[in-house]
Amino acid sequence: MLDIIRIGENAVQAKRVLAIADEHSRVAALKAMAYALEDNISKIIQANKIDMQNAKENGLSAAMQDRLMLNEERIRAIAKSVMEIAMQHSVIGWVIEESIRPNGLRVQKVSVPIGVIGIIYESRPNVTVDSAALTLKSGNACILRGGKEAINSNIALANIIREAIASAGLPRDCVQLIDDTSRESANALMRLNGYVDVLIPRGGKGLIEAVCKNSTVPVIETGAGTCHIYVDKDADVDMAAEIIFNAKTSRPSVCNAAEAMLIHKDIARVALPKIAKRLKDSKVEVEIRGDERVCEILPHAKPATDEDWGKEYNDYIIAAKVVDSLEEACEHIYRYGTQHSECIVTDNAQAKEEFLKRVDAAAVYVNASTRFTDGGEFGFGAEIGISTQKLHARGPLGLKELTSYKYQILGDGQVR
Amino acid sequence: MLDIIRIGENAVQAKRVLAIADEHSRVAALKAMAYALEDNISKIIQANKIDMQNAKENGLSAAMQDRLMLNEERIRAIAKSVMEIAMQHSVIGWVIEESIRPNGLRVQKVSVPIGVIGIIYESRPNVTVDSAALTLKSGNACILRGGKEAINSNIALANIIREAIASAGLPRDCVQLIDDTSRESANALMRLNGYVDVLIPRGGKGLIEAVCKNSTVPVIETGAGTCHIYVDKDADVDMAAEIIFNAKTSRPSVCNAAEAMLIHKDIARVALPKIAKRLKDSKVEVEIRGDERVCEILPHAKPATDEDWGKEYNDYIIAAKVVDSLEEACEHIYRYGTQHSECIVTDNAQAKEEFLKRVDAAAVYVNASTRFTDGGEFGFGAEIGISTQKLHARGPLGLKELTSYKYQILGDGQVR
Repeated sequence: MLDIIRIGENAVQAKRVLAIADEHSRVAALKAMAYALEDNISKIIQANKIDMQNAKENGLSAAMQDRLMLNEERIRAIAKSVMEIAMQHSVIGWVIEESIRPNGLRVQKVSVPIGVIGIIYESRPNVTVDSAALTLKSGNACILRGGKEAINSNIALANIIREAIASAGLPRDCVQLIDDTSRESANALMRLNGYVDVLIPRGGKGLIEAVCKNSTVPVIETGAGTCHIYVDKDADVDMAAEIIFNAKTSRPSVCNAAEAMLIHKDIARVALPKIAKRLKDSKVEVEIRGDERVCEILPHAKPATDEDWGKEYNDYIIAAKVVDSLEEACEHIYRYGTQHSECIVTDNAQAKEEFLKRVDAAAVYVNASTRFTDGGEFGFGAEIGISTQKLHARGPLGLKELTSYKYQILGDGQVR
Repeated sequence: MLDIIRIGENAVQAKRVLAIADEHSRVAALKAMAYALEDNISKIIQANKIDMQNAKENGLSAAMQDRLMLNEERIRAIAKSVMEIAMQHSVIGWVIEESIRPNGLRVQKVSVPIGVIGIIYESRPNVTVDSAALTLKSGNACILRGGKEAINSNIALANIIREAIASAGLPRDCVQLIDDTSRESANALMRLNGYVDVLIPRGGKGLIEAVCKNSTVPVIETGAGTCHIYVDKDADVDMAAEIIFNAKTSRPSVCNAAEAMLIHKDIARVALPKIAKRLKDSKVEVEIRGDERVCEILPHAKPATDEDWGKEYNDYIIAAKVVDSLEEACEHIYRYGTQHSECIVTDNAQAKEEFLKRVDAAAVYVNASTRFTDGGEFGFGAEIGISTQKLHARGPLGLKELTSYKYQILGDGQVR
């Protein structure tokens, strides 16, 4: 039977050792992880074959099977990314701010790990390694709870990682995998207050909503993205077409892909045909679902229904609406957006400023594809997800976002 | 009947106006608030008299009545503190970080308000004004829910504040007071997801626990403090006595007061008598509740029971224990502390470093009183509480801690 309290206690013990470990030992453990993964490729593939066999028997889609599959090339890529995480700058022990008070007290704000991070995720086994590496690099212990499809791969990976960490002198319980993939085990992790400091769901909308709803542990919501591109009356129309083409078609399944375009009425007759033409270049033709004014200009567009506004298609479909003003565009985004990534295409300085101010989202773009909302693209190195909440961290969650801080106050006898 | 959804909607409307307001208009509204308070002193005192009358009839303690009471001097002090908050540096619209990516994208991390902040508090009416001023200065709308003892004072204050804000051109709903002081109204506010972005309880342990337990809206826990002073074997004993005297007796009712002292065995015979002697200077003699070894050295100490460890007395009582090592002190603090403020007194550099590293608390002190854990003392200006959680903000919550951020990405047609 699952002893979740024991797992919580183990994590807390590991956290306390990590709190006094130095960067050198964290890097050594990460390097050991990377080498151990390369040394155990055949063992990992063997375990993965069981998952793949089960996937076939259970009739998982080809796309799902592809996500699940590990081969030598993929394992070497995973090991390489661990090494890259190891080589990033340390995020722990930095003096973020410092002041000397009039009474001589030195007040330092110093970055520290959060503590124990729980991660609930779905079928990709690389998330196991990636989450372990990111949490360890930022000085945190982690409790991983992956999906049942990848359980054999995950167990193999977790064992290899844990041995590697131990061989480098840190507690193997810095990383723990819950090998029970029942709904109960996920719920137990969501209620492990006092042991788990924060829970990060990594996966689809259903998973994230379930975690936000059921968790009593604080959650960092890594959210769905219904991203809009607003083409202003002063837009460069060719640029708008390129940005929409890229934001919609380069990877429709991800959260930073565009789901809707809003076109200013003064430019709609010029812009919409150009955009529609560009969208035909996609390997799968993009379906446009437009409001009345869009359908008037683009006779081949499908009429949009109320359900199209705010919808995350994750597919080669885009909603389209003609708006009377920038204000109307902002109003639409306010109503239907998910505070993820929103974009304006314009050459008008005032419109840029208005849009940046009015739109409340993790990432607000001027003249660039929403697809850039990504830790790597922002220069953070690896990321663990994109936060769509406002507390603690917003946007790409890099290593720095996995830390907290404490104040160190150095005196020579001051009293108040 | 309480229409909490309407209150939530009003706050969201106000938040959206605040999001595009500039610092000038926030400052103008705060100044108008300060002047309006001074102009309406007699009206406020009149309302307060009703609360005071009720307090007497309901047999509230003298201390509670004193907290509730407003007179001209106190109202002028409240107005002055609003003016001081107005004059602080703006915390909104700052570029916190900025980088130019290899593809030419300019990525700016810009400070923004959190949005709508709910505040649940108890009997002090000054919290009404203070919370309104701090949230407005940081660009947030607030929903206030104070205690029933101060309801007449709070209604008078909120009306004056709201009129002042409106006279300065911002929506009066930037500040709303829930005039229903039933438990139901507090619970309704705790479940106003989608309208309230964060809830901050301001008050005693019972209130904070109830909010943390019942709220589905994210909470910033402003916590209880069981603060320890560890006197190391290499401590300056006179300094230790001064620090303990100050941390225990300068204001025993507050969260940064010391509740326990841990004395290294090698110094206990010298240190304990000196500390005990100093504690006799207090206006109320401090009761020492010691473990066996303490009682052996201080025959007048009372024997501590298991309940004394980790207890927040808020009184002229201190627990005392002799420990064998710094590790044992850290272990005790880990077990019984509340991650608020902890202190070591020592002249040994290695012991300082060990303690700073090992102790996981919002504020860790070397050779200074724990009483300095305070926004004003840290140089933040006013504070709204002391956070004892790790997510978002830790330690004193100043204006900066009432903000979030967004990324603004400026391009010239970049696609991925």
